[in-house]
Amino acid sequence: MLWEVNKVRKNIIPGFQFNGLVAGIKKDGKKDMGLIYSEVPAVAAGVFTRNWIKAAPVILTQKRVQRRYIQAVLVNSGCANACTGKKGIEDALILTKNLARILKIPSDLVTIASTGIIGEFLPVKRMDDRLGDLCNGLNSKKISDFAHAIMTTDTFPKIAFRKKVIAGKEIVIGGIAKGAGMINPSLATMLVFILTNAAILPQSLPSLLDEGVKKSFARITIDGDTSTNDTVLLLANWQAGNNPWSQKTAKANGFMLMLLEVMQELAQKIVEDGEGATKVIEIKIKKARSEEAAECIARSIAHSPLVKTAFYGEEVNWGRIIAAAGKTNFPISFEKIDLFIGQVPLIKNGINLAPQNEKEAQKLLREKKIIVTLVLNQGRGETSVFTTDLSPGYVKINAGYKS
Amino acid sequence: MLWEVNKVRKNIIPGFQFNGLVAGIKKDGKKDMGLIYSEVPAVAAGVFTRNWIKAAPVILTQKRVQRRYIQAVLVNSGCANACTGKKGIEDALILTKNLARILKIPSDLVTIASTGIIGEFLPVKRMDDRLGDLCNGLNSKKISDFAHAIMTTDTFPKIAFRKKVIAGKEIVIGGIAKGAGMINPSLATMLVFILTNAAILPQSLPSLLDEGVKKSFARITIDGDTSTNDTVLLLANWQAGNNPWSQKTAKANGFMLMLLEVMQELAQKIVEDGEGATKVIEIKIKKARSEEAAECIARSIAHSPLVKTAFYGEEVNWGRIIAAAGKTNFPISFEKIDLFIGQVPLIKNGINLAPQNEKEAQKLLREKKIIVTLVLNQGRGETSVFTTDLSPGYVKINAGYKS
Repeated sequence: MLWEVNKVRKNIIPGFQFNGLVAGIKKDGKKDMGLIYSEVPAVAAGVFTRNWIKAAPVILTQKRVQRRYIQAVLVNSGCANACTGKKGIEDALILTKNLARILKIPSDLVTIASTGIIGEFLPVKRMDDRLGDLCNGLNSKKISDFAHAIMTTDTFPKIAFRKKVIAGKEIVIGGIAKGAGMINPSLATMLVFILTNAAILPQSLPSLLDEGVKKSFARITIDGDTSTNDTVLLLANWQAGNNPWSQKTAKANGFMLMLLEVMQELAQKIVEDGEGATKVIEIKIKKARSEEAAECIARSIAHSPLVKTAFYGEEVNWGRIIAAAGKTNFPISFEKIDLFIGQVPLIKNGINLAPQNEKEAQKLLREKKIIVTLVLNQGRGETSVFTTDLSPGYVKINAGYKS
Repeated sequence: MLWEVNKVRKNIIPGFQFNGLVAGIKKDGKKDMGLIYSEVPAVAAGVFTRNWIKAAPVILTQKRVQRRYIQAVLVNSGCANACTGKKGIEDALILTKNLARILKIPSDLVTIASTGIIGEFLPVKRMDDRLGDLCNGLNSKKISDFAHAIMTTDTFPKIAFRKKVIAGKEIVIGGIAKGAGMINPSLATMLVFILTNAAILPQSLPSLLDEGVKKSFARITIDGDTSTNDTVLLLANWQAGNNPWSQKTAKANGFMLMLLEVMQELAQKIVEDGEGATKVIEIKIKKARSEEAAECIARSIAHSPLVKTAFYGEEVNWGRIIAAAGKTNFPISFEKIDLFIGQVPLIKNGINLAPQNEKEAQKLLREKKIIVTLVLNQGRGETSVFTTDLSPGYVKINAGYKS
């Protein structure tokens, strides 16, 4: 049973413990409250929603992360505690304070994240009643319980791990995410917690996180909507015993790459689990007049309902891609454009090659993963974003069908 | 049968003739080629798609409208003649030239508009063969044939009329539009032709049209997509015999209001016929920090798939409206917000009134027309846009289901 042992061992991030249980916040009776606990205060960095309407837990956590040390993260699903005014903030404060008392740590070291319905108050009493059990049940092997407790419309829990010996020390990075709907560049109903035993200098952690987010979670978009609750937290608890790394060292010794792998794997899982998604589509823009133009054009395509429904229908409808690319503020010229599905060219210098290549392209469109490459031949700007198709399932989920 | 006569009479715009027939461009055997003919050259103004990728007919018509006189407008559905390069332009030129020869007018006075699939060439031969019949069948009473010939996924033809005696002359304005999908602020697969017998000074016509578009077609949005072919043409053939009006006169004597009514009626019909739409939703923004902010926030709400699916589901889900409002570059503050469905308040100064008002709001959400008012209490900016819900029907139509 070596494999079993290894598997369990693999899922441990030294110095971190987890739990997840049913507090009765969700109506479906599933796990809805979870806890991450670091045995020592961990150096912390966070990235939060850019929506002007920020949920109470985001406001509180943003403040506490600024002090750079976090030891516990309380998370609930089923209620977003957003648009809840002063009472929302007070509720979050009460819960973190009571949790801190049970854990015997300063409440400054406790943060909170919530996801679920906007505009409703947290069932504080019900949650408070379970804080003791939540702490008592903490265990380094219960990461999956935690991952389940933070799910909303997610169809599967999202966990990613990487382990590597760097400078003689075993470095582990583990990440847990929830996503599903409202996923968009500005982060959206997305909660991500990334934990490592590495020692990283407090002043270096935020830039490592920012760089990672830019290359992972900021590259996925499902519906262009942005939630009030998005939170990405990175905690480093120094348990590996390495000489604390600066940003430069972490990049040179492979830690950054490892971190990026975890973040990209989680981002990939979030987009794969996009509400109603049947396909993941990568939109690559090349040779745009600038990075900014590439970015804007990629998102215009990725958010176009006409493009997304065409992918759902598995149709070669390149006109919609071109029309979406042409509607931004950045001028493009059809005569210069090359467009590919996978390696199959549909347009070359504005010449329509679809008639002869349609069958081959059609074959690729039936796949679960599709790569669209639009070469604008205007400059050096390039980017790539991941999105999903738009299916009747998306409408069904979001129209609140009770079935 | 006075009524019948009146009805026919009502549908006549002095000096304009119409036709519509089957040229075999569409696969479904329905009418797909139409013609508007003015018995004398009419003063013309146009507004065109802001997409950088402009279809061949748009490029040609834009040029010809600049000379300010137009006598014939050839329109086809089934093929957009977009992304068709030089051959696309040549095809449009050949057709307008041959049509001009049959009509015995200079080809400079002939414009063309196309709608349908992007990336395919016009079946020039097939269309050319029917130009003679198209001209022979011209008749002042055949506006409905024309309206049918320009339809694509439209479920009904869109015609609007206004008649009024101004300064002793009977002034008529008639408009024909097609819309359905891809409708958005920057105009999208929308063709609109507005015809009047009034005499308007050539230099005044463009500003009248611009003002009208700003208050009608620019206020509707279905999916945020923008087509390559959008065209709004206004032709004034001076047959009413009035002293030619300047912009100022046309505003003072009620002509502008009449024009606006025609344009708004057509815009309303386009949004009502939005692909898969089951409801029309007006998003009113009040007391925003600026007009620009109001505009941007209104469209962010109107384009949000989460908001639109919630309307389809007839659910009171104000959190999605607020989240969509908060994701733009313009800061808003939840504590200042009032939100109404119809007259029913859901939020007042950031206080959630939904629990007590949910039933009343629910009732309004079951209606076909819904008004959402978001008061930001930040300044004097205000706007209103019309959009639709997002239904499984939209996905079905646009995924290209053959059923």
